Amino acid sequence: MNNSFVLKGNICHSKNPNTLEIIENGFLVCEDGFSKGIFFKLPEIYSNLRLIDHKQNLILPGLTDLHIHAPQYSFRALSMDLELLDWLETNTFPEEAKYQNIDYAEKAYSIFTDDLKKSPNTRACIFATIHNEATKYLMKLLEDSGLVTMVGKVNMDRNSPEYLCEKNPETSINHTEKWLSETIGKFKNTYPILTPRFIPTCSDELMKNLKDLQIKFDLPMQSHLSENPSEIKWVSELCPKSAFYGDAYNQAGLFGGDCKTIMAHCVWSPEEEIDLMRKNGVFIAHCPQSNTNLSSGIAPVSKSLDKGLKIGLGSDVAGGSQLSVFRAMSDAIQASKLYWRLIDESAKPLTIENAFYMGTAGGGEFFGKVGKFDEGYEFDAVVIDDSLENMRTTLDLNIKQRLERIIYLSDDRNINAKYVRGARIL
Amino acid sequence: MNNSFVLKGNICHSKNPNTLEIIENGFLVCEDGFSKGIFFKLPEIYSNLRLIDHKQNLILPGLTDLHIHAPQYSFRALSMDLELLDWLETNTFPEEAKYQNIDYAEKAYSIFTDDLKKSPNTRACIFATIHNEATKYLMKLLEDSGLVTMVGKVNMDRNSPEYLCEKNPETSINHTEKWLSETIGKFKNTYPILTPRFIPTCSDELMKNLKDLQIKFDLPMQSHLSENPSEIKWVSELCPKSAFYGDAYNQAGLFGGDCKTIMAHCVWSPEEEIDLMRKNGVFIAHCPQSNTNLSSGIAPVSKSLDKGLKIGLGSDVAGGSQLSVFRAMSDAIQASKLYWRLIDESAKPLTIENAFYMGTAGGGEFFGKVGKFDEGYEFDAVVIDDSLENMRTTLDLNIKQRLERIIYLSDDRNINAKYVRGARIL
Repeated sequence: MNNSFVLKGNICHSKNPNTLEIIENGFLVCEDGFSKGIFFKLPEIYSNLRLIDHKQNLILPGLTDLHIHAPQYSFRALSMDLELLDWLETNTFPEEAKYQNIDYAEKAYSIFTDDLKKSPNTRACIFATIHNEATKYLMKLLEDSGLVTMVGKVNMDRNSPEYLCEKNPETSINHTEKWLSETIGKFKNTYPILTPRFIPTCSDELMKNLKDLQIKFDLPMQSHLSENPSEIKWVSELCPKSAFYGDAYNQAGLFGGDCKTIMAHCVWSPEEEIDLMRKNGVFIAHCPQSNTNLSSGIAPVSKSLDKGLKIGLGSDVAGGSQLSVFRAMSDAIQASKLYWRLIDESAKPLTIENAFYMGTAGGGEFFGKVGKFDEGYEFDAVVIDDSLENMRTTLDLNIKQRLERIIYLSDDRNINAKYVRGARIL
Repeated sequence: MNNSFVLKGNICHSKNPNTLEIIENGFLVCEDGFSKGIFFKLPEIYSNLRLIDHKQNLILPGLTDLHIHAPQYSFRALSMDLELLDWLETNTFPEEAKYQNIDYAEKAYSIFTDDLKKSPNTRACIFATIHNEATKYLMKLLEDSGLVTMVGKVNMDRNSPEYLCEKNPETSINHTEKWLSETIGKFKNTYPILTPRFIPTCSDELMKNLKDLQIKFDLPMQSHLSENPSEIKWVSELCPKSAFYGDAYNQAGLFGGDCKTIMAHCVWSPEEEIDLMRKNGVFIAHCPQSNTNLSSGIAPVSKSLDKGLKIGLGSDVAGGSQLSVFRAMSDAIQASKLYWRLIDESAKPLTIENAFYMGTAGGGEFFGKVGKFDEGYEFDAVVIDDSLENMRTTLDLNIKQRLERIIYLSDDRNINAKYVRGARIL
């Protein structure tokens, strides 16, 4: 079968947030798109499967981007001299409004999807815009790419410029329900996800009605939380009855529990918010580069990891500029070192193991059994050739050292092959 | 003549730390390796010069790396889980000791020089090791590359492992003088620079004798300053008579004034140190990525820039992992935003203009009239092709926006041509 084969190479994945498992010259078995595990010696029962020898290359789980805005890819690495709320108003909303024009959306989303396909990421949770047609087009492109993604038509019914605002809660819900009815179950690898932009742009009534949709269609949900001090202050004014920002989502029933939820950022989350996220199994999408570029701050993510919260990494393009979750890993380590030095010496810097875990198994868990090579996991793998020009050294490196250099130095040239759910897409 | 020609393209350079000059479809004239300036229309007197049309590409001044360790390039992006002093002991010193072996040095320095040549940098101030032969070999390679560099044989006569320590001040001085006599005036583009590693590894007597060498040969000088709190504490113990770290250099006469000096880092410099640097015209090599990777902190560089200090950027490989000074520019902006948010809201974040200035004219000034296209400046230019895959967007960008994206997104694939002192080397 096409989706059953054996990969040979230097295999590395996370056992847990603190431990890598490394098998040199090992065998990784894929059967019907699922992993059968890693083997030092290929078991006899798999000897009839096609063997693809990746030789000295590294075979890693595909990376998961837990938070990215597809329509913002066009202006990545531009105009980052503003804080969040001004940046949304000045740069983001005008660009997102263009996606009402399907021709523009086709062009821009094609570039985005092509580049995502070439990245080391195999999964992503994606914000689109408020526009149904453009969002459906993006989903079609992503489906064709072979990547596995969750894509959200965004909800915004207040505090948004007229050109990018759904007239009222009813309009927003009607559009969203129409979009859901046209996309749920329509793709093999592409799923809708409920996507209220964030509390400031979603009225209480909209949130209440979104909860009904969430129940009706049994949907996961993604949004933003506690990114910037001004945003947090605004939310406390908009929702005087909420004890903290996350409580505003929680009061609508959209904060984990029976609603599988990702909250991006959590830079300034108070302790009660962190505790509730842990209790409700809310995933944190840690977006270190974006939090730096928009002057938001540094999320104390090593502390949350120690507390057992579910954490993955997000590129947050276009708050962040790079798609590769390898870059998010090194950014996360770097930010954690500054946090330790400048803010709190009890928050120990993230290790390579921590960062690699978050970018693979940590974020992958939002998709189910994803991000490891243990038996029963969906088979997403990225094969890295680090023998190329941009990696040259005189040193003999062990596998962990090679992984470290990949995290800091690799780009799309180093990606030799990519498998998603057992299908080779690169 | 070979070194006289005209470049046509979109030309951009810094007028001052806060202002870019941008000439679209302009003409940049090089005569005998020096700039004759930028022109909207090519003056008649240059009409007989060879014209190279770089079309829509950007033509920028070559970048200057004010601080980099050539022997550390081999272990870039490795083992960055330690602070400065432990990192030196565990990772750096054992690797630098290998350069006693000239075969190893030849291999490693060849990789370093090849990669530096492919980078957007045209100038660099480089630390080698304590070894004369390897350092001379590095200088020969750099000379062959066409880059313009200052290279330092390092001095270390105390607090260093036996395998990487010059026996006493006399040995260190004798070796250094021998190396100087063999390299001064021997190259067209490669110059020796006095390089006491830092106060902890250089005895008072060594520093005193280095000052004699500095005067005798009229040498510039480079070292490290106020990088890490433990280092600073150690220096205060080693030099109880110095009022602050920089004063220890100053007491030896090696802190600017008649000795053209670069001090790398200055993360924790007290006000008196900053004031003395300004007074003495000491250059700061700001190394944001290294200061992050080694958990040193963030240098308040926008404040120093406002005070009129001379500041350039350093990759500080292998504290930093990337050679490109474009990366140092974006790292500097990012670090300054976190400093503003987390430490001091009166220290305004660096702008694109600030960062580009530091990476071109700011650091270039250490080499003389370098880093701008004004008439009389040495002609270093890098031509960037941002029409490639890794830059794609649906937006129509102006030149400043294209520059911003180059700073955040470019890699060696975007370098279309490189001129140093009027010679095309790429």
